[in-house]
Amino acid sequence: MDTKHAVVLLSGGLDSATILAVAKSEDYLCHCLSFDYGQRNRHELEAAKRLAAGAASHTIMPIHLDHFGGSALTGDGEVPKNTETKGIPVTYVPARNTIFLSYALALAEIRNAEAVFIGVNSVDYSGYPDCRPEFIAAYQKMANLATKRGVEGDTVTIRAPLQNLTKSGIIAWGTSLGVDYSLTLTCYDPVGAEGLACGGCDSCRLRRQGFLEAGVDDPTRYAKK
Amino acid sequence: MDTKHAVVLLSGGLDSATILAVAKSEDYLCHCLSFDYGQRNRHELEAAKRLAAGAASHTIMPIHLDHFGGSALTGDGEVPKNTETKGIPVTYVPARNTIFLSYALALAEIRNAEAVFIGVNSVDYSGYPDCRPEFIAAYQKMANLATKRGVEGDTVTIRAPLQNLTKSGIIAWGTSLGVDYSLTLTCYDPVGAEGLACGGCDSCRLRRQGFLEAGVDDPTRYAKK
Repeated sequence: MDTKHAVVLLSGGLDSATILAVAKSEDYLCHCLSFDYGQRNRHELEAAKRLAAGAASHTIMPIHLDHFGGSALTGDGEVPKNTETKGIPVTYVPARNTIFLSYALALAEIRNAEAVFIGVNSVDYSGYPDCRPEFIAAYQKMANLATKRGVEGDTVTIRAPLQNLTKSGIIAWGTSLGVDYSLTLTCYDPVGAEGLACGGCDSCRLRRQGFLEAGVDDPTRYAKK
Repeated sequence: MDTKHAVVLLSGGLDSATILAVAKSEDYLCHCLSFDYGQRNRHELEAAKRLAAGAASHTIMPIHLDHFGGSALTGDGEVPKNTETKGIPVTYVPARNTIFLSYALALAEIRNAEAVFIGVNSVDYSGYPDCRPEFIAAYQKMANLATKRGVEGDTVTIRAPLQNLTKSGIIAWGTSLGVDYSLTLTCYDPVGAEGLACGGCDSCRLRRQGFLEAGVDDPTRYAKK
């Protein structure tokens, strides 16, 4: 059987840990791609390194969105706590997934990967425009026209296997695939040198509720319970 | 009249100098965006700086395609001389315009720009997949879905005004707009500390022929005539 290669966008969070496991379960050799974009959450990159330990390769690509400014995730603004997200969250980074997917597309071309895995899902796309199914579909059409391989009829498939799952569904699937979620970090605002989850931000709330609903013990190390 | 903002992708070459002039002629305040992607041609960035001197802003965004490898433009391979390009040139950089446009889209969102100008044209798209009109059209559709502004119905228009022009047509138009082409550099393999045009690479050949056909004196400083 020919070796199959995939690029996996790996943030270090729960969702990306799950898509890495999904890609591995489909016998892909996985080339993990993380971004150092000046995010306040440096612990997330450490989590990505832990998760990528058994992968074929792991590239941490420095990008410089901080040159542009404009988002709580890269700035010094307060991260909202215990708020319901309505509309587009203030943590939105302009064109972030567009940029991330574009690097992934380049890496896929270079590694002869036939798929790019991205961990967008139904919870995310309630707020972020670039997490919606219609965005991924439009990106696919563009990608088919963007590259040498695409022109030669050998397209790269953008895979978003979590697209229609709730957080609890993702956790249930990942658990069945053996994902060790204690390695992951999704908190927007981790606490202390160890980077414990704050337990209060939107991301922590969604995660905690997901484990509860999935009936899976939550291995997250919270700063407060 | 409201101030209009545009992002202009500025490589420092003849085509990008022309689209900057086109954008200015339409009364856009221009935010120039260049990329330092480890290209062998460092003189190109110097040309971009000269061209952007009168613009509203100029960002030189470091990107690290060299982490990926895979092209003559960023590697140490020989640049082909005096060859007709058939199919996709060896100077192709995977997903380059996809990545460049994605950063431009982010900057457009931040600066409230209503347009992104890119200097792709009919000569380029004979070889590069991501210079073709159908690629730009697909990118536009994706961009409409990718950003907060797009979702709110206020899309960023991807403008490729050189799309259907030959090199001589571009030169004629730019000359009528007052572009000083002596500031630009398009050579793949410039010579010496001054960065003189080699006169032999595909890019120099197309440029020289363009001036000839346009009936405009060629101000390019060639290492050899």
